[in-house]
This record gives sequence, structure tokens and C-alpha cells, in this order.
Amino acid sequence: MSKKVLLVHAHPEPTSVSSQMLAVAKETLESQGHEVMLSDLHAMNWKAVFDGHDFPRRLDPERLSFIAESGHAYRNAMQTPDVQLEQAKLLAADAVIFQFPLWWFGMPAIMKGWIDRVFAYGLAYGYKDKGNLYRYGEGGLQGKRAMLSITVGGPEEDYSTRGINGSLDQLLFPITHGTLFFPGMDVLPTFAVYNAVRMSPEATERAKAKLESRVRNLFAERPIPFRAQNGGDYPDGHVLAQHIASGIVGIDAHIGEW
Amino acid sequence: MSKKVLLVHAHPEPTSVSSQMLAVAKETLESQGHEVMLSDLHAMNWKAVFDGHDFPRRLDPERLSFIAESGHAYRNAMQTPDVQLEQAKLLAADAVIFQFPLWWFGMPAIMKGWIDRVFAYGLAYGYKDKGNLYRYGEGGLQGKRAMLSITVGGPEEDYSTRGINGSLDQLLFPITHGTLFFPGMDVLPTFAVYNAVRMSPEATERAKAKLESRVRNLFAERPIPFRAQNGGDYPDGHVLAQHIASGIVGIDAHIGEW
Repeated sequence: MSKKVLLVHAHPEPTSVSSQMLAVAKETLESQGHEVMLSDLHAMNWKAVFDGHDFPRRLDPERLSFIAESGHAYRNAMQTPDVQLEQAKLLAADAVIFQFPLWWFGMPAIMKGWIDRVFAYGLAYGYKDKGNLYRYGEGGLQGKRAMLSITVGGPEEDYSTRGINGSLDQLLFPITHGTLFFPGMDVLPTFAVYNAVRMSPEATERAKAKLESRVRNLFAERPIPFRAQNGGDYPDGHVLAQHIASGIVGIDAHIGEW
Repeated sequence: MSKKVLLVHAHPEPTSVSSQMLAVAKETLESQGHEVMLSDLHAMNWKAVFDGHDFPRRLDPERLSFIAESGHAYRNAMQTPDVQLEQAKLLAADAVIFQFPLWWFGMPAIMKGWIDRVFAYGLAYGYKDKGNLYRYGEGGLQGKRAMLSITVGGPEEDYSTRGINGSLDQLLFPITHGTLFFPGMDVLPTFAVYNAVRMSPEATERAKAKLESRVRNLFAERPIPFRAQNGGDYPDGHVLAQHIASGIVGIDAHIGEW
């Protein structure tokens, strides 16, 4: 069945590895009959900074509270048109792929600013105005899939379980778990191209083939089994129950069985 | 002895908890006789997006490679004036405090964009043009101290060792370890104000007093004992030696003994 997929991209150079990977995702999805929506952030001249200009009609003109104004603006359709358009694409999408170069072990600022501005109170947090009642597995984006597709300058071993940078999955946990699973998305394992600086044509072709295979499987692959807040593992909604992941220390405790 | 401290701030509302914490840091440092430099990013209208405009005189006008152009521009003093000024402040500083609200478990885009643009090749990575030879404990910012001072909307238990968000220290590892220790800074434990939404005057005063005490101790406190790349724990410069932290899984393995 035909699906809608949103691609969010953060590299301005059309010939970069990142842009080449984006093209592979787009072509693969279209060849499968899916509808592709594109948010090419540099081409859109996306405003990265979340600030008072995001709230043209303030609830409180005296003191800027981002949470209060975000909720007010989202609820009353008073957001800026660029944010409204991105939210409409996000809400229409069955899946979202984030294509970006890993800069300082996170998203480039332009993409972080897409999250900061588009993931409004009432949509991505504070769902139904019920505080944190619906986070982690439930929320405004529940039922949609998400995948990070990144390019990395360094070698894979630096990002391995005992690699010097820390493991890639743990470094990306604030995004995969804290940003995408938080509002209810099903997050697929990250796709990474390592050694993405001065790649040979052969290495580039291998990376393209791997991504094509991942994208073909986008709606069939099993998501990372992050534990749902309201699935029983967090009885008080805050801390893991003692008997859950009792031998596991750190953020891996929040991932269940495959 | 009098020191120089750079404060980098990312909240536009002068009465926010973040701005109040900034004021505490500034007043405390000045009362100790230190010299304070301020980068108030919203007030400066800081350009968050790292793009082709960062390289007015390109090495390769045809194809934009961020790493190559960053190195070329830094080496030849061809960066934009705003970036040059921030690097001058950073290089003059004995310590840097980053004051920001935690948004989606990371920095607001405006501060991530300060890192993306100011942490140039040749300064914060690619030091001495020697690839990764000097990273993690050595590099262009060696000998300087750094501290994150953050405000967090949620309760502390959500960020505890088994809290649902993941532990705060692990969530911030891409910043403390991957961004600040990477170019050689000594990183102090993070200072966090939890429940920073609609704080009572009493809770605000308690938080101010705690930060004041931390800032007074800025040059005496012990940094997080991240393992240095070239200290022997990573014999090949990539992966931890088998006998180091052999019982520890995940990013905590990169922290040594206090």
C-alpha cells in the first residue's frame, strides 16, 4: 500500500554524501509507489532559532515562556506559517527519515532547530495538555515510523561498543529515544555511513545499496524495542521497576527484548 | 589569581530561570575578581546555521566540504568576523560556562550552532592538522575548564540512574565528552536546576545558592575523569584496551576513577 514519507535533510551541498543518500531514499520510495515529501532545510532557508518571533500573538507579552506560548500558539493556530506547514507534513507522514551529517555527535543546528520549533507543546509533548501522561510510546506522533540516516566522518570502530567516542546508539539516544520515541514514534535502528569524508566511488555505491535495502524495508523492519512509559515497566511513570532490566546499568535499560 | 571566564547563554527572556542563573554566575565571578566575557546568543542575534556563508573565500568554489573549508578559513584568517570574535573570547578564557535550557535532551539550536561554527577544524578538531591525533584530553582548548549549567523542565527522578529519560550524565555525554573533552577541556560535573517551570521564589533562591557555590569553586573542583586518548587506555587510539573498565558496558567505560 502506498504510504507518505517525509524526508528532512540538513546538508547544503548537492554533491555531498548526505545529499546522495537523500536521493537514494527518495528514488527508492518513489519506485515503491510511496509519496515523498521533502524538507530540505538549507534550501528552505529554515529559521533554526526558536525565539519570540515564533509567537506573533503572545499569551503573555511581558514574559516569554516557551512552553506556555508554544501550547497557546499550537492550540489556537497562531504559529508561524513555516512551522504550521512542517507540522502538516509531519502529521500527514507515515514515516520520517532524518538525513544529516553527525556534527559534534548530534544534529546540525538547522535540524535541531526544526525539532525545537516544530515539536510543539500539545503535539510532541504535553499531548492533550496532560503533562507527561502520554510520553514514550504514546503521543501526538504515535503510529508513525522514524529513522535517522547519518553520515559520519570517522571510522566505525570509534563508535563501537568500546570505541573511544562511545557507541553510536548510545550517543544518539537523546534523539532516538528522547526526541522521536517520546511523542510515540516507532524508531528504526540508525543507518550510518562511516568514513564519509573523501569516499571512493566504490564505497559510495556500497553505502547507497545498503541504504536502498533499508529504505525498501522501512515499513517492515522491527523498531528498536524502547520500553513504553505506560506498558508496565515504569509503575510510577518515572523510574524503571526494580525487576525490569535489573542487571543493566545506564540507558540500555530502557530497551526491551527484540 | 584573577581568571577570565566566558559565559555562553541561550535564553532570550531576561526574567527566565536561565537568565537568573546566568546573572548569579556573572556576579559570583566578578565578586571573586575574575573577568567575565559574555556571549548572550539571542541578544547577539547569533547566526545558528553553519553553511556556505561561513566561507567568504572558498578553497573550492565548486563543492562545499565543511571540513576542508573550515580548515582553510581558520588557517588563513578568512572566517567571518562573528566567528573570529567568539574564537578570540574562547582562546582568552580560562573557563567556559554554557548556560541553557535543556530542549529535547540537548542544546537549543542557537547554542549548537555556536559549537558548529566556532569549533573550527584546526582549533577544536584536526588540531595541528594531524587528524585525530590530539583529541580527547589534548587539543586546541587544552587546559581550559568547561561546565554545563542547565535548566530542566522535568523532575530529577526522571533523569536518575534508572529514570525514564536516561541519566542526565549519559544524555549529556555527547556534549561533555564528545564536544568539550574532545578538544582538551577539563569538564566539570553538570549543574542542573530541575523543575524549572513555574518555580517558587524559594526554590529559585535555593538553586541560585547552589550555583553560586559551584561557581565559587570553578577553578578548584575536580573535573570528570574522562579517559585521555593518549593516556594508555586506548592503545590504538580507537578502542579501549580489554583490561580497562572490563566490567563496564556503555559510555561509562570512558570515565576513569575519581
